[in-house]
Parts: sequence; C-alpha cells; structure tokens
Amino acid sequence: MKALIFDNGLKLDENYKEPTMKAGDALIKTTLCGICNTDEEITKGYMGYKGVLGHEFTGVVQDVFNSQDEGWIGKRVVGEINAGCKKCTWCARGLERHCPNRGTLGIWQKEGCFSEYFTLPVSNLLEIPENVSDEEAVFIEPLAAAYEIIEQVHIKPTDKVALLGDGKLGLSIALVLGALNIDITHIGKHQNKLDISASAGNKTLLLEDTAGLRQFFDVVIEATGSKGGFETSLNLVKPRGILVLKSTIAANEGLNLAPVVINEITVVGSRCGQFAPVMRLLERGAIDVKPLITKILPFEDGIRGFELNRQKDTLKVILKV
Amino acid sequence: MKALIFDNGLKLDENYKEPTMKAGDALIKTTLCGICNTDEEITKGYMGYKGVLGHEFTGVVQDVFNSQDEGWIGKRVVGEINAGCKKCTWCARGLERHCPNRGTLGIWQKEGCFSEYFTLPVSNLLEIPENVSDEEAVFIEPLAAAYEIIEQVHIKPTDKVALLGDGKLGLSIALVLGALNIDITHIGKHQNKLDISASAGNKTLLLEDTAGLRQFFDVVIEATGSKGGFETSLNLVKPRGILVLKSTIAANEGLNLAPVVINEITVVGSRCGQFAPVMRLLERGAIDVKPLITKILPFEDGIRGFELNRQKDTLKVILKV
Repeated sequence: MKALIFDNGLKLDENYKEPTMKAGDALIKTTLCGICNTDEEITKGYMGYKGVLGHEFTGVVQDVFNSQDEGWIGKRVVGEINAGCKKCTWCARGLERHCPNRGTLGIWQKEGCFSEYFTLPVSNLLEIPENVSDEEAVFIEPLAAAYEIIEQVHIKPTDKVALLGDGKLGLSIALVLGALNIDITHIGKHQNKLDISASAGNKTLLLEDTAGLRQFFDVVIEATGSKGGFETSLNLVKPRGILVLKSTIAANEGLNLAPVVINEITVVGSRCGQFAPVMRLLERGAIDVKPLITKILPFEDGIRGFELNRQKDTLKVILKV
Repeated sequence: MKALIFDNGLKLDENYKEPTMKAGDALIKTTLCGICNTDEEITKGYMGYKGVLGHEFTGVVQDVFNSQDEGWIGKRVVGEINAGCKKCTWCARGLERHCPNRGTLGIWQKEGCFSEYFTLPVSNLLEIPENVSDEEAVFIEPLAAAYEIIEQVHIKPTDKVALLGDGKLGLSIALVLGALNIDITHIGKHQNKLDISASAGNKTLLLEDTAGLRQFFDVVIEATGSKGGFETSLNLVKPRGILVLKSTIAANEGLNLAPVVINEITVVGSRCGQFAPVMRLLERGAIDVKPLITKILPFEDGIRGFELNRQKDTLKVILKV
C-alpha cells in the first residue's frame, strides 16, 4: 500500500506492507489526513520515531479483529491517537493518553495514519455523525486539544480571556472558545489570520497594540510557543490569574518565573483532549473550520504537502487518500 | 401614566404618577415587559411589596439625570434589576445584587417596570445590539439566571449533566447550557416542553424513565422547586458530584440532607446572573427564545396576562407597552 514514512528522510513508499490487526483492533481505510506541525518535528528527529507518519485522520472501518465489534464495519470514524496498555492505573482511570506504555499513532511505538490502511483499537474510535463532513471531522484532534482547556480550567462567563498566537493552534482555540461564548481577546501578529478569529465572533488585537492591557486578563492562553509569548502572557495576566500553556516553549531558553510567584499566577499545562465534546460542537454546526484549510492535496502529493506546511502563511494542509 | 400595580390586589391604574429621577438615574420608556412567576408570588404577598410590579423589560432611554450620561438617550436597553447603595462593601465588590440596602425593581423598595415609564441607575443599563430584537432581549434576566450556573460551577466538557424541571426556568437553563455545548440530559414530566429542549440539541427523558440512572450524573441541576425534585436530584447525582439548586424549595417541607453528607455532595445555591455574557450569546444568534413565548398581549390586557401565566401550559407571557 501507499504510505508516507519517515526513515532518515521523508518518503512516499508505494509498496509499504499492510498492517495486521491485534485483538481489539479495527482496520481503517483512510479517507483524509491532516498534516500537523508535530509531523514536521518528527522529520527533524522529534521522539526518535521511524515509520508511517500521521495522527490526524478520517477513515472508514474496513475490518475488525473481534467478531463482537462487527457493527463498526463500514462506519465513518475518527479516533483517539493514544492506545494504552489497558493494564496500568492510568488506563484504569480512563487516562490512556498518560499510560507510560502507550503507543501514539505516528508519534511513538505505533505506525501512523498517513497510509491507505492502518489499525487502532475499536475502543479508540468515535463514529462521525451524518451531518458532519470528513473535511470537518479531520480537525477533531487539534480542536480537542483546544477544548481540553475548558476541561482543566473554570473559565467564567464574565472572565476576560486573552489568547496569544494566531497560528493553527491559536486559531483552533479561538474557534472552540468562541463557539462556547467565552469573552476572548485574540492577540497576534498577522491581521489576515486574526480576521478568521474575528469572523468567529472574537475580539482581536495586534500584539503591538496591547501596551495598555498590563494585568488586565483573568485568564491568558499562551499558544505561540515562544519565549516572548510567555513573557507577554505574564504581563497580560492579572495577579492571581491563570496562565494556560498550550505549547511547549523552547526548553533551552531560560524563563524567569519570578512574576509567577510574586503575582501568585496559576500556570496550567495543557495538551490533548477528548473527542466527544468536539464532535457535539461540530454536529451542532457551531464551528466553521473551512477558513483553516489552506489546501487539500491528493495523497500522492504528500511530500509537497509537507513543503507547503513549512511556509509561513499556511494553516492546515489535508491529504486525500 | 398606565401601570400594573399590586396594592391589596392586582390593578391596572390608568393615572399612576410618573416617576422622578435621582442622581445617576435614567428615565426609561418601556417597550416590552415579561411576566415572571415572582410577580405572581408578589400578588400573593411575597416580600410584602406594594407598588408597580415587574422586573423583566426592554425599553428606550428617554432622559437622564446627569448631563454626562446624555449619550444613553434614545438607546434600546435592558438593565440589571438590583440597584445597590454604592456605599457598602458588597457594592464595592461589584455585587450590588447582594447589597443589604438594595432596591430590586418591582420586588423590594423600588417601583417596577410594568408601567409606561420607570427609572434605573444608568450604571445598571446594557445597550441592546442592533441584531438582537426586543422579543429576544426581554428574556435576558431569566437567561442570565440560567447562565449564573456556569459562573459558579466548573462544568467540564466531558461531564454528564442532568437538568430537572421543564418549566420556564428549566427551559431557560436548557437553552443556555445547550448553546454552550454542555452534555445535558433534560428530565421532565411534559413531552411537549421537553421537545423545545430537544430542538436546542439536548437529550431529553421523561421522569418515569430515569430509574436506571441512579448516581449517574456529575452535575444535577434542580429547577423544579419541589421536594420531590430535590430527592430525585440526590438520587441522580454521583458521589462527590454537584447539585445546583436554582429554585427555592418549599421551605416548610422537611428535607433529608443525610445523602448529601454520606455521598459528599456539593450543593450550590444559584440565583440571578449578569447580563453581558447572555447578550453575547443572543448577539451570536446561539439561542432561539421564540418557543418560550406563549403570548404577546397589549399592556392594557395585563390582568389577563397574569391569568394566562397561572395556567399550567403557559411559558412566557409578554406585555407590549
């Protein structure tokens, strides 16, 4: 089968071996793949991963290992990307994404979805409702990461929230939090990207215009992944406020945490989220993901898709299998 | 001017004296009034109130006391119903609705809005955006009371939430929480009323079908105001879960709080809320209030409006001034 793999370089392999199911697995025929910056990082050596790339997908269940799962065959699905050992205490608590022995689709110990077929445990799957398109559903993983903020932090209707960063991550957060009627001021450097957030009903502001907003916000969400973004966030958040870190900040840059202590800031790290609440939002028609799609390319143009993803103005590149 | 007053009986007075402004006040010409069950309670002696009834309104600012407020003249407005003393610590904290010396429109120490003109401090007013109609905006006070739940309680995207009661209050909560994509199961006794909630995207269930849901819900919202509703809520909520009381339960009925202790339930009392977050929701077009309107009557038919409000199947009765 065709597969986009990383093995000392990004390659399109036309004859990659087809995957085989284990107990509890589904075999999924891929329909759409989304390219994520994490995929790009892996091609630079992140996680030391080699094999089929990719963790954002929509697909159709082709086969299942266990006969009691046959009802899934033919269903359009998305799926949680972490497959736990199902034996440890993390898995027992439903937190497979923190299982120390987990495989993570296309990232860690598990072949990804950038191929014609791949496998995932049936227990990871979520059916796509009839009125949600593949082009919408393929965004579920990044949107779930955005929604995770609300799972972790109590943002009140009257809270003033600043969101820093207008890349893919920042815009995903803007769409989800906007749909939940949260009072966001979205701050970034690119008016054309901020306009997408404004269309979703958010207030927007260029970074250069934030001078008067020192210690103004109850909650600040840092989604730039830069040292400067972290420092700006600390400047914008109220004493006793909450700073949500959605992005791994370049670790070898020194960060001054003194303002966190002095102003009693709560810093909350936030990563992946659960899919079901996002699917409810999509089913409700509360999010328009179309402005996030830069290009849909045929799967065979995957290498070009990665090149396009590296360009500054690109948002989401999708591959159609 | 015409006014609907309570003074040993509900009366339509054709020649009630017009109100006069104090410093900081606006004089408002009423356009729509909403009849609330609290108005009905007042006609039975609640709060010992006498005077012009009513606290749900839309209006247009006719005049202001202070010249610096002249920009408000001609604006369509709603307004927070509690006017604090502006001197006590509650008022200093922005909690005028808890000020011990507050006047509450048409409920306590302040003439209400069921009249051609009435006054409120300018600081209580909120302008109605152009794309929000009077028929929508007149619901802002009950919708704000619904939204207050989210101000007080962290309801997570993955939380299972039961809402008990399908009257006006329950339906207002269903519309607000539904618009916020919260995973609600709305439980009631009237399928026709639950259908309004279902149209807003919520799951619904008749009370008689809840037997299998003992200790199933993370959060239960009690909006029936009955002893039976409280007992059902305690039965539905998980150990360590949250029970939100939105309604004053008949106080002279004895309630057994032992399950609250044994199952470590958090009980949260919840009353009025702030208007601005609801106005954002209405402006976003996220709530359809039309199914809640039973009848719009001319102001002169106010007595008939109260009679209609007493009927079992009535939701909101609105008077047009």
